[in-house]
Amino acid sequence: MTNLQLNKEGKLKHFLSIEGLSKESLTEILDTAESFSSMSEQRVKKVPLLRGKTIVILFFENSTRTRTTFELAATRLSADVLTMNISTSATSKGESLLDTIRNLEAMHVDMFVVRHAISGAGHFIAQNAAPHISVINAGDGQHAHPTQAMLDMFTIRQYKHDFKELKVAIIGDILHSRVARSQIQALNTLGTKEVRVIAPKTLLPAHVESLGVKAFNSIEEGLAGVDVIIMLRLQKERMTSALLPTEREYFKCFGLTEKRLKLAKSNAIVMHPGPINRGVEIESCIADGPQSVILQQVGNGIAVRMAIMSLTLQSNIEAL
Amino acid sequence: MTNLQLNKEGKLKHFLSIEGLSKESLTEILDTAESFSSMSEQRVKKVPLLRGKTIVILFFENSTRTRTTFELAATRLSADVLTMNISTSATSKGESLLDTIRNLEAMHVDMFVVRHAISGAGHFIAQNAAPHISVINAGDGQHAHPTQAMLDMFTIRQYKHDFKELKVAIIGDILHSRVARSQIQALNTLGTKEVRVIAPKTLLPAHVESLGVKAFNSIEEGLAGVDVIIMLRLQKERMTSALLPTEREYFKCFGLTEKRLKLAKSNAIVMHPGPINRGVEIESCIADGPQSVILQQVGNGIAVRMAIMSLTLQSNIEAL
Amino acid sequence: MTNLQLNKEGKLKHFLSIEGLSKESLTEILDTAESFSSMSEQRVKKVPLLRGKTIVILFFENSTRTRTTFELAATRLSADVLTMNISTSATSKGESLLDTIRNLEAMHVDMFVVRHAISGAGHFIAQNAAPHISVINAGDGQHAHPTQAMLDMFTIRQYKHDFKELKVAIIGDILHSRVARSQIQALNTLGTKEVRVIAPKTLLPAHVESLGVKAFNSIEEGLAGVDVIIMLRLQKERMTSALLPTEREYFKCFGLTEKRLKLAKSNAIVMHPGPINRGVEIESCIADGPQSVILQQVGNGIAVRMAIMSLTLQSNIEAL
Repeated sequence: MTNLQLNKEGKLKHFLSIEGLSKESLTEILDTAESFSSMSEQRVKKVPLLRGKTIVILFFENSTRTRTTFELAATRLSADVLTMNISTSATSKGESLLDTIRNLEAMHVDMFVVRHAISGAGHFIAQNAAPHISVINAGDGQHAHPTQAMLDMFTIRQYKHDFKELKVAIIGDILHSRVARSQIQALNTLGTKEVRVIAPKTLLPAHVESLGVKAFNSIEEGLAGVDVIIMLRLQKERMTSALLPTEREYFKCFGLTEKRLKLAKSNAIVMHPGPINRGVEIESCIADGPQSVILQQVGNGIAVRMAIMSLTLQSNIEAL
Repeated sequence: MTNLQLNKEGKLKHFLSIEGLSKESLTEILDTAESFSSMSEQRVKKVPLLRGKTIVILFFENSTRTRTTFELAATRLSADVLTMNISTSATSKGESLLDTIRNLEAMHVDMFVVRHAISGAGHFIAQNAAPHISVINAGDGQHAHPTQAMLDMFTIRQYKHDFKELKVAIIGDILHSRVARSQIQALNTLGTKEVRVIAPKTLLPAHVESLGVKAFNSIEEGLAGVDVIIMLRLQKERMTSALLPTEREYFKCFGLTEKRLKLAKSNAIVMHPGPINRGVEIESCIADGPQSVILQQVGNGIAVRMAIMSLTLQSNIEAL
Repeated sequence: MTNLQLNKEGKLKHFLSIEGLSKESLTEILDTAESFSSMSEQRVKKVPLLRGKTIVILFFENSTRTRTTFELAATRLSADVLTMNISTSATSKGESLLDTIRNLEAMHVDMFVVRHAISGAGHFIAQNAAPHISVINAGDGQHAHPTQAMLDMFTIRQYKHDFKELKVAIIGDILHSRVARSQIQALNTLGTKEVRVIAPKTLLPAHVESLGVKAFNSIEEGLAGVDVIIMLRLQKERMTSALLPTEREYFKCFGLTEKRLKLAKSNAIVMHPGPINRGVEIESCIADGPQSVILQQVGNGIAVRMAIMSLTLQSNIEAL
């Protein structure tokens, strides 16, 4: 898995999961994103870095927000964007995933940004794609969502500067969350002092400590003294599957309220990948309050994706 | 409402309704549109005015024609365009309109072009949007469709030059038409001599004269001596709601026929916002005839929208 | 029909069918495509040839692959692309095809790329479009698919250089295939020594020899000694219409197997317009094998469409 993401010179060629990437690789992404971040304030929010490149947004699972940030990131790098919603395309004519990939490759595209309901779909495509193509995982099953994790790391660094003194709590459905999995790996790789996960037992993986976290079933205990609070979105489907009681009950036990927020450090930041379920996992007044950096995360998402797209494609160009 | 559209220097910042705009503001739009209008004949139909700007086409109501003209207008100003059909997007995940707006803002977009079934949706977004963002109303409920009204004014000025000697008749469902409401305001603001509305009583607002128009229930009387005839599209939904008899009956009483057209001035022009219901509100031979300027309106729609987009964004840039 | 495609100077103005075009016209397209073909290998895969031009992809029939290659071709020529999926647009408001065309023309677009289920739709639009507009047929009913045929000719020339010594076999549902019709015309116009069609009798047109081909009902006889094998995609709809037995039966009689492939020349190439039905008309190992040029065809599709788009628009520009 490790080597697949790097080219012979050890440069990022694909971006599929945080697993297997070094602290230096992650830091290079964060540093590059910083240069793009200031660009958003400029009159002309474009650089010609990827002019003449074709980026295919290959979404087998719909997600307006993630798709939009990738499209904007690609456009601001001056790339040409081809968005394919695969449920409505050739695969319905009975074409296999591999045939779809082969055909797009033959059209001389340069990058696939893949979102798929099956864990490992991005790896599969990267293993099978032509050498000149970069693959970015925009979420695969319950496995990983590494660009989300990186924009979260970028946001934490923006507010807290150094990971090595930080206590970070992730709250919600850890068991099913690809976001949480990628966040935990990134936080540990970047040397975070303490990573906590807070969830009911039914929503924690078995042996969760082996991921390098401290587990809490009480939100009050878990929040005590943390610098960063990361809420996860509650997938309402879980309700029906008997893993969770009602929304109200969930909020009562694990929702982030003003009272609970006071248990964290007074300058703690509150994060959420969005879209928010107001009043389910988080109180509205916190989402809109002074400690919330949720909208900052959205903007950072574009800078971080610009960084990942340009780094992977440039290492590919240099290798040629 | 008035001040919301203008910045501190009195320049157009949003474009939400004709109401509250001065004759000078409307004339500035028409003059700017004239400079873009000649551009359509050139080999390269593009100017770099809005390069690096991101324009979000935020349509909660579908309209291929209006959407297309906005997309083309933005593209010809070299802006990047993000089209969001909101019925199929994040709001279906339960996100509120305001959260959608906040998220798009965080992506550093510069303009929202909004179409919504609820009157006042554009105003609501303009009131709540970040200071650097311009909002353009592309049709809100039965309230206003001001860019359509401005392209109509542009077309009238092209053919008739001066408003102050003109008699203009608007024919059709005045009661439910946001187009008519905006046209009446624009015609009066620009000093039109006489604005007439022609409709069955069931399709006229109560106290319609207070809008500054003369009302007619007979098309023959209303058309006598007019310089400009503006047909409205018959919304077939009205049929079922008992406000109207059959299409045939409507055409018999209020359809524009060759015989009726002769009652207007011999050089009167015939306008229609499209799409046309041939043989319902207008005879086919008139729609395609020498007095029709219906297709001219479509082309003017792009120039006028380029003008409104560039004026609002430029006043925003200057204000920064 | 012939003259409609050419302007007064005999230059290609529209591209609607191979019929009526000279060997010189087809060769000019192939030569122009060759210059674009090498471009795909470059870092910046773009030329500014059609900057400021608006190309409307007007698809009344869905086809992800053909649409995508046209979009990429237009983008790589730096044109602005407007994709209209007509089933979801204004025509559903009751607007006629001609009104849709007139409205798009009024928006100062430069080209229509049309795909339609009715034979002759492209011709109809070309006959009725404004003089400055070029029309390209991207497939009309069972009539023609001339850009597919040209990319096939380009691929054959790439591997076999000269048509006049070649034996080419087309295998499959000749009767209903617009691709086959256009291929036969192109092969004959380019002076191919022998064009063969191989199909069960139920899938051959009456008097097929009048098209300039030799007909075979046995795939073994038809493949003997050929240089080029063109497979057609089996339209599964045909199964239900009693023209064909089961898929298995079809494969048994007309599927391309390794054993049958040996009957052709040892350096014969295998072509297919895609998407492939693996195991129905062709064995998987042949599709992926050394004689297959199927993916090469896909890439060539972009170069050939760039050539056709730029040639037709440039002759239009020169004529103005």
